[in-house]
Formats: sequence, C-alpha cells, structure tokens
Amino acid sequence: MSVSIIGIQGIPDIQKGDDLAQIIVDRVKRQKETIKDHDILVISQKVVSKAEGQIIQLDAIQPSVFSRQIAKELQRDPRHVEVILNESKKIIRMRSGHLITETRHGFICANSGVDQSNIGKKNSVTLLPKNPDASANLIRKKIHQLTGRNVPVIITDTFGRAWRMGQVNFAIGVSGIKPVHDYRGKRDMYRRVLHVTEIALADELASAGELVMNKSDRIPAAIIRGYRYRFGHGSGKDLLRPEDKDLFR
Amino acid sequence: MSVSIIGIQGIPDIQKGDDLAQIIVDRVKRQKETIKDHDILVISQKVVSKAEGQIIQLDAIQPSVFSRQIAKELQRDPRHVEVILNESKKIIRMRSGHLITETRHGFICANSGVDQSNIGKKNSVTLLPKNPDASANLIRKKIHQLTGRNVPVIITDTFGRAWRMGQVNFAIGVSGIKPVHDYRGKRDMYRRVLHVTEIALADELASAGELVMNKSDRIPAAIIRGYRYRFGHGSGKDLLRPEDKDLFR
Repeated sequence: MSVSIIGIQGIPDIQKGDDLAQIIVDRVKRQKETIKDHDILVISQKVVSKAEGQIIQLDAIQPSVFSRQIAKELQRDPRHVEVILNESKKIIRMRSGHLITETRHGFICANSGVDQSNIGKKNSVTLLPKNPDASANLIRKKIHQLTGRNVPVIITDTFGRAWRMGQVNFAIGVSGIKPVHDYRGKRDMYRRVLHVTEIALADELASAGELVMNKSDRIPAAIIRGYRYRFGHGSGKDLLRPEDKDLFR
Repeated sequence: MSVSIIGIQGIPDIQKGDDLAQIIVDRVKRQKETIKDHDILVISQKVVSKAEGQIIQLDAIQPSVFSRQIAKELQRDPRHVEVILNESKKIIRMRSGHLITETRHGFICANSGVDQSNIGKKNSVTLLPKNPDASANLIRKKIHQLTGRNVPVIITDTFGRAWRMGQVNFAIGVSGIKPVHDYRGKRDMYRRVLHVTEIALADELASAGELVMNKSDRIPAAIIRGYRYRFGHGSGKDLLRPEDKDLFR
C-alpha cells in the first residue's frame, strides 16, 4: 500500500476574487498531472482567505480600550489585538505575549488564526475563512465542474498543541470525507474488539500535506493519492472536542 | 515536489527478541523495494514493544489498594490500572473511566500507553518501549549495517489530543532527524521575517505514516520517501513542551 503527496507548484499570488479551483486545476495540468478519482486535495488556509478577501488593513482599525490594555500587557500592536478579539468568542490563555483563543468557528489556536505572514501588503493581516467548510465545499464543487472528478477537499492551518512542541497542520474545513474514522467495535489482528480507537484522519491528511507545502507558501496545495477512504459528509467542526468530553484540556 | 509513503507489508507476529530491523529489511526486499538514501522509516510502537518484550501478563500483577480504589471508580481492571500507574510519573486527569497520565518518559497520553490491543495473548498488555529514542537508534544502526543506508527512524504511537476529536500518530522515539524544524528568522514569500513558526515535523511524518499503517496492525511500518530534511541529532523528548511554556494546557 502506497500513498503519494504531490505538491501543486507555481500557484501565483492570490488576490481577492481569484478562482482558486480554476488556478489549482490549471497548475496541476501545467505540471503534467491530473486530478484523479479518489485523490484528496489539501489546501492551505492562507490562499483560501486571500481569494475570499479575508484581509484586514490594520490602519483602518480603531482598537478598543480593552484591546489597548491587552496589547500593552502583551507588547503587541493594539490594532492586531483588536482584530484577534473580533475573531474570538473566548480567550483561553493570555500570557508572555501570546493569546490563545477560541475562534468564532470553535477552533482553539494562537491569535484566532489572524496572521501577518505571506500577505505581501504592509500592515495587513489575514483572517481564517468565515466558513472553512463552505469554502472547502465550494472548491470541491468547482473542481468537479472543471474536471469531472469529485475529490474531497481539506483546508488546513498550522496550529500549536497542548503538551507538544512545534506546530502541525490541522484540518479546519472539510468537504467530501468524514474527518474522524471510528474503529470502535472493529477487531484487531487477533480478532479482539477495539474499544477506543477513533482516528482523526483529516488532521493526519493535513499533516501529510504539509510535508510538501513549503513554509514560505510557494506550494499552498497538495494532492494526496492512494489513500483509501470512504466518501462521506464532513465538517471541520467534527474535529472539535466538546469541552465536557475533553480530558486533555 | 512529491513525497511517497510506502507501507511495509507482511511483517509477522513479532516475538520478544525478534530482530525488527532484519525483518523490516527482508519484507521491504520481498515487496521488491529497497531502503534508499534519504528515506525515513516510521515504525509503530507496538511492534517495537513486542520485540523488546515489553509485555506484562495481568495475572502476575498484584494491584495496590490505590489501584483497586481507582479501578473501582473508573470501572477498570485493577491490574491494568496498577500497570498504568507503574508506568506513570503523574496522573493528569482521571474521569469518566479514563486515565490521562504523564509517562515516565514525559509523554502525556491515555493509560501511559499501556495497551490491550494487538497482542494476541490473553490478559496481556504492552508497555511503551523503555527508551523509545534508544530503540529508534538501535534500529537505525542495524538498518545501516544491513543495507548501508543511514535513514532516520521514527517510532510512533497513537495519542489523543486536547481540544480535538480523534487520535493521531505522534513521534515518541526519534533517531537521525531533528524532530522540530525552526523557521523563526526565515523569511516568508514576501521576505517578511517569520516569527513564530516551529514545525513539529516528526509528528507530521508520524501522521503521514499512519495513512498506510493499517489500524489492525498488519502494516506496522512505512517508508517515507522524497521528504527533504536534514540529518540531525533527534529525540522524542524534543517534542515535549515544558509545562511552564505551555499555554495550551
């Protein structure tokens, strides 16, 4: 059994309104590849946000008193803090210059995913897509129209984690695949029933995609080929563990 | 840029004392593959533990009063609880039948990684390898002796996570590769200096490996080929975030 991860190269600087699906299909063709049945498409949040115009000019932001207080304490730009708070429904941690928040979607991450890298505009920040599942769904439908192939789409972002050093790619938007695979009730190789194994396969696919998705964002998308999965209805929210069932937090 | 993940098939039921490196090299040859320079070998903890005899017969365990109390509360087998506590240096959470512990190595996971699946012996549990880095290092050296190839080895286990549903593969033992890649000080595609990006690439490689490593454990190892990395000294402990620097916990 073999899985390949193919980086999609040469994707240009994405502007608001760009048709990301069209650009991806074109670039795949240029590298003499085709999107095939049972492929999975992994796309970095950054290009999706740019295509959707999820960019804020910090100069236009008037920070609140609260944002200015926090910014002072954390030694941050108060306008950036203001944008982060606007994207948050809860502050989880606030310490040593860092802000861990729960975003409006329910993701727990640094700065509500509001990011200053790879934008190319001074004093600008990108926000996460408003509805990453809807974004993934739209791209999937357009890819289908353009190629006849119905492939799952996973939108990813790089998040920190409790207990572990470093960041990894997580799935924030999902379309066409069930993000968590439940092995409970299945049997192990000795036919003993497995009790607790639910695998967050969309997060594992996101991590795998990251192996070719260059950190400086020149390769913001990848095809994963050869992974056996079942089509299914999927949502990035399926990966959010309810607080009362989370022993790790 | 393309990365492949090749499952190593037909690895037999591993017994204490088996030479895992030799078995892997043989099986790779049988599927008409070879281990190549710059490959990375990902191996499931379960087969490493079995080869190292890290199996405990529950019948031989005399649970303490404390283990029996906890077991009663959590409705668990007191002998299993006893083994879990023996492998722990700290209980992190204890609720709803679950035990999240910090293992003697410092990993935060359910049940200290003590597992009842895929053993094939009744009333037995496997423990994590005593020193997963040393295990990875030994396998790397033996692979080098057998093939002349010096390939990084990552030993993985399936852990739950804070905030997120489902489990993913994490790297617990590492040899020959730096597990966290620090992008801080590098520049983004617009030449803006990146500030906070450290990628836990060993965890991402572990997750990628899991895409071919069958849950019923028939494929407990994989070759990752085409990923550009630098050789370096590595330890699974590099992935453990010190408590005082962990905003997520």
